[in-house]
Amino acid sequence: MAVDVIVSEVGPRDGLQSIDQLLDLETKKRWITAEAAAGVTEIEVGSFVNYRLLPQMSDTAALVEHARQIEGLAVAVLVPNLRGASAAIEAGASKISIPVSASETHSLNNVRRTHAQMIDEVRNIRAAINQLPAAEQPYFEAGIATAFGCTLEGHVSLSTVQRLAEQLLEAGAEEVGLSDTTGFANPAMIKNRIRAVHNTVGRDKLTGVHLHNTRGLGLTNAFAALDEGITTLDSSLAGLGGCPFAPGASGNIVTEDLVFMLESMGLNTGIDIDALVAVRSILESALPAEPLYGFIPDASVPLGWSDIRAEHAVAN
Amino acid sequence: MAVDVIVSEVGPRDGLQSIDQLLDLETKKRWITAEAAAGVTEIEVGSFVNYRLLPQMSDTAALVEHARQIEGLAVAVLVPNLRGASAAIEAGASKISIPVSASETHSLNNVRRTHAQMIDEVRNIRAAINQLPAAEQPYFEAGIATAFGCTLEGHVSLSTVQRLAEQLLEAGAEEVGLSDTTGFANPAMIKNRIRAVHNTVGRDKLTGVHLHNTRGLGLTNAFAALDEGITTLDSSLAGLGGCPFAPGASGNIVTEDLVFMLESMGLNTGIDIDALVAVRSILESALPAEPLYGFIPDASVPLGWSDIRAEHAVAN
Repeated sequence: MAVDVIVSEVGPRDGLQSIDQLLDLETKKRWITAEAAAGVTEIEVGSFVNYRLLPQMSDTAALVEHARQIEGLAVAVLVPNLRGASAAIEAGASKISIPVSASETHSLNNVRRTHAQMIDEVRNIRAAINQLPAAEQPYFEAGIATAFGCTLEGHVSLSTVQRLAEQLLEAGAEEVGLSDTTGFANPAMIKNRIRAVHNTVGRDKLTGVHLHNTRGLGLTNAFAALDEGITTLDSSLAGLGGCPFAPGASGNIVTEDLVFMLESMGLNTGIDIDALVAVRSILESALPAEPLYGFIPDASVPLGWSDIRAEHAVAN
Repeated sequence: MAVDVIVSEVGPRDGLQSIDQLLDLETKKRWITAEAAAGVTEIEVGSFVNYRLLPQMSDTAALVEHARQIEGLAVAVLVPNLRGASAAIEAGASKISIPVSASETHSLNNVRRTHAQMIDEVRNIRAAINQLPAAEQPYFEAGIATAFGCTLEGHVSLSTVQRLAEQLLEAGAEEVGLSDTTGFANPAMIKNRIRAVHNTVGRDKLTGVHLHNTRGLGLTNAFAALDEGITTLDSSLAGLGGCPFAPGASGNIVTEDLVFMLESMGLNTGIDIDALVAVRSILESALPAEPLYGFIPDASVPLGWSDIRAEHAVAN
């Protein structure tokens, strides 16, 4: 059965980058293997960044190599620049994402680059990818960070997001994503901005969003995004982590709860929710100091859940 | 400015009935007064039940008398039967709700009555109300509990909910509400069932829902309900409480977070969110052992929030 929605697990990258304790390579591999076995088809395994700033990400190349061996798994990585993209290409990642902040203040604070400089970086990465044989080229996406507001600038205008989307695609990204880096979004804004960007660049050029749960609206915003045709949703097992560069922002959507919502609605994620919940034990053992979030691990799926799912399938 | 959505505070009833510590009458009064002053226009102040079973609710008559003096406030109470309704009428409540469980097993466990017996009870309450002069008649609603599933029966069929809605209205309720007593609902089910009941009984006969956050979908379900034209949403300050008769179910929607979501979307609730958050201090002082929930009290509204709200107002 075809998957209706891709749940993209970002815990090994977005989750781990924001916690203090280093997770060892073997545990990361077990985590990735177990989630893939539960049915997750896309995992952001790490980022190619300055390891002195983020030592948690120093083993990303080894993780890519490991994850590539898992059949059917899209192996995504985050890169801040051409240097990172070159490392990602060398390691053999199947999907490369570069975050470009709609808030130029945030961009300057985070990676010390203006919009124009980031667009140049995208152009240079495109050129590097184009040197590869077509079959070896990774998918290249630009994630528009702070697309719904910024803890430094406050409101970020929709026209800035639309213009940046056009420029990033023109510079060679195959797709843009919208990221609520700071947890500022609400479901009306989600719908409004996705629709506006779709109108600007086309629906096939924006299929994924990255949402945070800072103000409790993570799943609601995900539902609103689905309603606008979004088909890839980022989340983190046990809600591990957040964005260390956005003060006060925290908390990815919990993968377990997201999968529960989607499957309850009769949407197929391809993921076995019990097997997914069982993966938490790896984090519990390896990161005993970290709080693990989520409702479904405690509440479990409701009695009669298969009837609930079937009801919606019929209703469609 | 007219209110777009009525946020109905149920903490003094649904919140308090599920905690062990008794809250004294004077503190309850201060809570109700403070929330009304923050702009809340409907408060369920208590229930007229067997006080030996729920001693927390023994001062409901005094609370109704207090709340009636607050101008513009709809004073709601819950009643399980005619006896409770008579007490509510005598006290002068402006809105009376009787819960009728779609799951007959739940109904028998909770109030030892079948569907037929509950419908008779509704008919008898209608007759009692009709004896009052028109200007003194409270608004009379039947809340369909376990409308999305039951911890005892599991799946509850939509046709059961539709039939019960028709019967309750025929018996004399002015309106039905749908309650996710057990936290089983998902946003697709919310939309599907509200639409189906609207088709059966008319949109004006179902304007409110009572949702729980047991599986993290409370706000998402509220958003889905809004999308189907629902205009009254129940919630509890700080997420206090849940349903003591539904094992494993817990947690109302947090009023603060609900108001934040609605206002973020450009919808007017009439509620000052800072004043609302300040009311938590009453609970913090009086119920030190109770956990208080909510994201907005910690995260606060985002920088540039007025621009966010204005963006949506323009987009409409």
